[in-house]
Amino acid sequence: MTHISYDKELVEEYVKKIQYVKPEGSENQDDKTKPSIAPTIGPYYDAMLGCARWTIPVHEHGHVTLVDMMPRLVPIGQTPDFAVVQAARVSYGAGTKKSTEDTGLIRYLIRHRHTTPSEMVEFKFHCKMPIFVARQWIRHRTASVNEYSARYSIVKDEFYVPEHIHGQSSSNNQGSNTALTFDEHLEKIESLVRDSYNAYDAMVKDGVAREQARMVLPTNVYTEWYWKIDLHNLMHFLSLRMDKHAQKEIQDFSLAMFAIVREIIPVSMQAFVDYRLDGVFLTRLEVEALQNQSLVLNTKNKRETDEWVDKAKNRLGLGWAQDKKDEGTEEPLSNGH
Amino acid sequence: MTHISYDKELVEEYVKKIQYVKPEGSENQDDKTKPSIAPTIGPYYDAMLGCARWTIPVHEHGHVTLVDMMPRLVPIGQTPDFAVVQAARVSYGAGTKKSTEDTGLIRYLIRHRHTTPSEMVEFKFHCKMPIFVARQWIRHRTASVNEYSARYSIVKDEFYVPEHIHGQSSSNNQGSNTALTFDEHLEKIESLVRDSYNAYDAMVKDGVAREQARMVLPTNVYTEWYWKIDLHNLMHFLSLRMDKHAQKEIQDFSLAMFAIVREIIPVSMQAFVDYRLDGVFLTRLEVEALQNQSLVLNTKNKRETDEWVDKAKNRLGLGWAQDKKDEGTEEPLSNGH
Amino acid sequence: MTHISYDKELVEEYVKKIQYVKPEGSENQDDKTKPSIAPTIGPYYDAMLGCARWTIPVHEHGHVTLVDMMPRLVPIGQTPDFAVVQAARVSYGAGTKKSTEDTGLIRYLIRHRHTTPSEMVEFKFHCKMPIFVARQWIRHRTASVNEYSARYSIVKDEFYVPEHIHGQSSSNNQGSNTALTFDEHLEKIESLVRDSYNAYDAMVKDGVAREQARMVLPTNVYTEWYWKIDLHNLMHFLSLRMDKHAQKEIQDFSLAMFAIVREIIPVSMQAFVDYRLDGVFLTRLEVEALQNQSLVLNTKNKRETDEWVDKAKNRLGLGWAQDKKDEGTEEPLSNGH
Amino acid sequence: MTHISYDKELVEEYVKKIQYVKPEGSENQDDKTKPSIAPTIGPYYDAMLGCARWTIPVHEHGHVTLVDMMPRLVPIGQTPDFAVVQAARVSYGAGTKKSTEDTGLIRYLIRHRHTTPSEMVEFKFHCKMPIFVARQWIRHRTASVNEYSARYSIVKDEFYVPEHIHGQSSSNNQGSNTALTFDEHLEKIESLVRDSYNAYDAMVKDGVAREQARMVLPTNVYTEWYWKIDLHNLMHFLSLRMDKHAQKEIQDFSLAMFAIVREIIPVSMQAFVDYRLDGVFLTRLEVEALQNQSLVLNTKNKRETDEWVDKAKNRLGLGWAQDKKDEGTEEPLSNGH
Repeated sequence: MTHISYDKELVEEYVKKIQYVKPEGSENQDDKTKPSIAPTIGPYYDAMLGCARWTIPVHEHGHVTLVDMMPRLVPIGQTPDFAVVQAARVSYGAGTKKSTEDTGLIRYLIRHRHTTPSEMVEFKFHCKMPIFVARQWIRHRTASVNEYSARYSIVKDEFYVPEHIHGQSSSNNQGSNTALTFDEHLEKIESLVRDSYNAYDAMVKDGVAREQARMVLPTNVYTEWYWKIDLHNLMHFLSLRMDKHAQKEIQDFSLAMFAIVREIIPVSMQAFVDYRLDGVFLTRLEVEALQNQSLVLNTKNKRETDEWVDKAKNRLGLGWAQDKKDEGTEEPLSNGH
Repeated sequence: MTHISYDKELVEEYVKKIQYVKPEGSENQDDKTKPSIAPTIGPYYDAMLGCARWTIPVHEHGHVTLVDMMPRLVPIGQTPDFAVVQAARVSYGAGTKKSTEDTGLIRYLIRHRHTTPSEMVEFKFHCKMPIFVARQWIRHRTASVNEYSARYSIVKDEFYVPEHIHGQSSSNNQGSNTALTFDEHLEKIESLVRDSYNAYDAMVKDGVAREQARMVLPTNVYTEWYWKIDLHNLMHFLSLRMDKHAQKEIQDFSLAMFAIVREIIPVSMQAFVDYRLDGVFLTRLEVEALQNQSLVLNTKNKRETDEWVDKAKNRLGLGWAQDKKDEGTEEPLSNGH
Repeated sequence: MTHISYDKELVEEYVKKIQYVKPEGSENQDDKTKPSIAPTIGPYYDAMLGCARWTIPVHEHGHVTLVDMMPRLVPIGQTPDFAVVQAARVSYGAGTKKSTEDTGLIRYLIRHRHTTPSEMVEFKFHCKMPIFVARQWIRHRTASVNEYSARYSIVKDEFYVPEHIHGQSSSNNQGSNTALTFDEHLEKIESLVRDSYNAYDAMVKDGVAREQARMVLPTNVYTEWYWKIDLHNLMHFLSLRMDKHAQKEIQDFSLAMFAIVREIIPVSMQAFVDYRLDGVFLTRLEVEALQNQSLVLNTKNKRETDEWVDKAKNRLGLGWAQDKKDEGTEEPLSNGH
Repeated sequence: MTHISYDKELVEEYVKKIQYVKPEGSENQDDKTKPSIAPTIGPYYDAMLGCARWTIPVHEHGHVTLVDMMPRLVPIGQTPDFAVVQAARVSYGAGTKKSTEDTGLIRYLIRHRHTTPSEMVEFKFHCKMPIFVARQWIRHRTASVNEYSARYSIVKDEFYVPEHIHGQSSSNNQGSNTALTFDEHLEKIESLVRDSYNAYDAMVKDGVAREQARMVLPTNVYTEWYWKIDLHNLMHFLSLRMDKHAQKEIQDFSLAMFAIVREIIPVSMQAFVDYRLDGVFLTRLEVEALQNQSLVLNTKNKRETDEWVDKAKNRLGLGWAQDKKDEGTEEPLSNGH
């Protein structure tokens, strides 16, 4: 896509939902609030603030949980962003080290797509999601994955059932509908899920190989995995899966992930917002439409023209330009419809 | 695993099942037999023998189909293996070019794990398999994939139902069985599959978003994809998925794939058999057991000892060594049980 | 970078320099012109027009040479772009197949960064370049490489000496210069290269291990390799290395490579030009500067402001916007200098 | 290669050379010995023992330095190996947690090439090495790299000159030698290096672009980089580069790296030694030679037979088998010479 739309309010909600889980056996294990003081080792502090996990529940049974990262120990007074700077400075020379300059360097790197220093930061997540979400997620090949095995272990009785069902956007159903409402379909999903799990459960109890028994489970059954990825590839994942064109369910997981990461590596994430997420790419045709001041896209492709009109009006606010144009006779932005 | 076991007879059966599909509109399009003559272009012939696809049906609805490869045009008198040699010779110098030397070079490269020249050969497959198989398959990250999208397209009414169900190998069911036979479970699977598809079908007809409707489909529903991989990574995939420890269903697909590839790039595949598939890895402890002639593994790990006994007897034929040992009092190979 | 600048004239020059090398032993082997007719096999033609290599000399000793690709055999009436469409249609359904629709689909895929179908096209190049260029090139990890080995083979007496030397852009030399002219330095380079090669040559003749002898050779000595990459990753490589910020020498190689690829897979390459190379990315701050019609970037970062001024004036032609602004008192585009 | 030979004594020497560098400003910064107590944060300790770097000098100017890892904070009583177990248990179920069982699980995983849990451990190194070593190193594509840039920064006057020069193993020099001794060649290398650096230095001082000036520097000039890799891919790197067939200089770096890693993740590294480094792979032909008790390899390939004889005698200690054979008339192991 040439620009990304994502649910900014949901990000803020997820930030509030982060549970800062203390290590097992800690005094304050019931306290899930953000620690106000980070524990230190020598001149370093723990980037995870002494917590074992930062977790956000997603849907009824799922979650996104940060379990470790590199760098974990961070020089006091800095953020984990320092690891990006450290790697970049091996290329450009050590130079000075003022914090404002570090911020400028990170922003420069991300603005200019110098992505290799971002690879020096790693995140390890524990996530739980329905199989149909996992199938989209796994397409990102630059991560390391260890998934719960339904060949060896018993699948739990946990399924994703959406709160609401929505219609197919360009619904080309040919009138042959069954007269069930969406709510009735939701009930159907729930009963099917029960039947499937009962059949699975009976097979397992009767000694059927688990690897075969699990084939009846629908793709809204939950799976879980450890998922490790570096910051550069995480930004790529987020830019694809936070977008409103992604399936809503995987949007939820990636927005929650973004909420966690934004808390822990703020400078890089602000640069990511400024130079990737909230930016807009103009195609050659769009650049020319700007250059020649006509704002008319030189193409007969209706879809492309529609995309430009939407982008120009809603993202670039080119209404002001259009107003100027309206003095003339042409109606540039509706051209091509 | 330290050695690979695979179903060699099934490979031979699959070789016989290859259908050599001629291009659309060909005179002999109903003839699926192997062409006896390869069509040529100048000094080259078509490695796929003028066919559009080499396909093997797997199970009731699935298939493995070679649709293209690189090199596709091969110097007359050579096999597609020549591309491996060509790349290797840029490292080692052009040298002489006798075909026997080329074979020796390929065997040397694979024996010594010089894998980069194998990366110069590419295979593009079209495959159709159940989702639970696809989920294992996709874990191999070094391939390119384009998969049928259940967000945009309607899933067909095709499911994998095994001919037979087998038991969990180390069945730890605690007697709580349901008294259904495996055949009864099979019937149950079929009825569940029908119910699931009917629910899916109704939702699609009623305009439910396809991306949501599909979540009720069980993981034995079929998906399909284009899957492109280089020879080096294909050998890695095959060595893991042809093995008898892999789930039977993915074994079938990978054995079929091996059957096709062995036909088309024979020298590399014979080297792969000789130096990977049919070889045996001895651990440090096993080497020492051989060296000190005791054949006794210096470990208290029962599982590791069992593996060694099995390997020594069944793969290395070390009965003859044991016979010699039996003159003494010790019973080395049963040690540790 | 947020937009790419490259030497478009040089691309056109390179296109003219493509040598279409016929297979060894061909009648017309001295004829390096583009064949007017592509040889066919059944319903397919050879994408490389019956040639063994498409080669462009780069600098005195170097070259970029296409030696194979996938798809190599292309349905008559189509271009190799068809392989992108074929893979995409497995996702979206087969649909209709008019050539204009195929073009639209490819353009849609590249415009929306649906990159996986592009991975289905492979190019195999034979290239020869100085080591300092090879060191930048190899940083692209998504290609397969077989390089000439200086451990086993003798390095040839071929070095890259630039026609002209240019100055360090932000030259911070502290007046301690040696009073040599750039031409005198060029002569120095040539004599050094001779000395180094003589020392290398003597060591090799005296039986010094080649792997050690080569360490005296300077990084402008030539190396060569086979380099295989898919179209998606090639586009990424080109967008980074064709840019004027890349070192001039690697620009030359990548511009030559682009010239070849554009000839052979024209639809994808035009989409690449329209939606990547000749487009412009606007950051969040730049989008806001457009939206609020001030054109003033809300940052104190001088470098970022300079980049925006340059982009707005020279790429977007926002002079017309500025003219309008000049009626007021502010001078937005010089803000921040 | 079918088995790996490496310099075990050198590993032990490197272990003794590890310098445990304390963070800047620490009281005990001059003390490079291993800390006896690890600093803790809650229930965790610092895997790097409160140090900023673990460094081993390699050759005169080079070094291998661990600067960070994941996991960095380790549960007290465990080693960083726990992260492998943690990831594996998501597949196999949590189960019990006795330390001996964790060791058994790690050994099982590595013995059976279940490599994905090893990907969950990351190492970040800072390394400095000659360019000709860096060129071999960079071929491993599964690492992240940030390298010192000779386009932007000034290259230091540091070169690798070997202590000794060795001869080409299969020296095919044709008597045309120059009558210089190896020591005389060494002196020549040193004077060439001086000349090259002087020319480079003069160009930089005269304002020649650094990216051009550096092309005269020979490949024994030093470069440096940050290099981040996961444990699985590190083991692959080590198995190739610690081997005696690798160039001696890169062997040194990888043996030093192994020495560091072995100290910090001991269980995985012992499994790596037992099931990879010190094991032996038997080819199909070698397995058959064992099975049929003849020990004769069924091939006319002299090189392969030589490899088997060497392996059988020196790695497997099959002298005892041969003795038995010697009662007969055949001389199996010399067959094929």
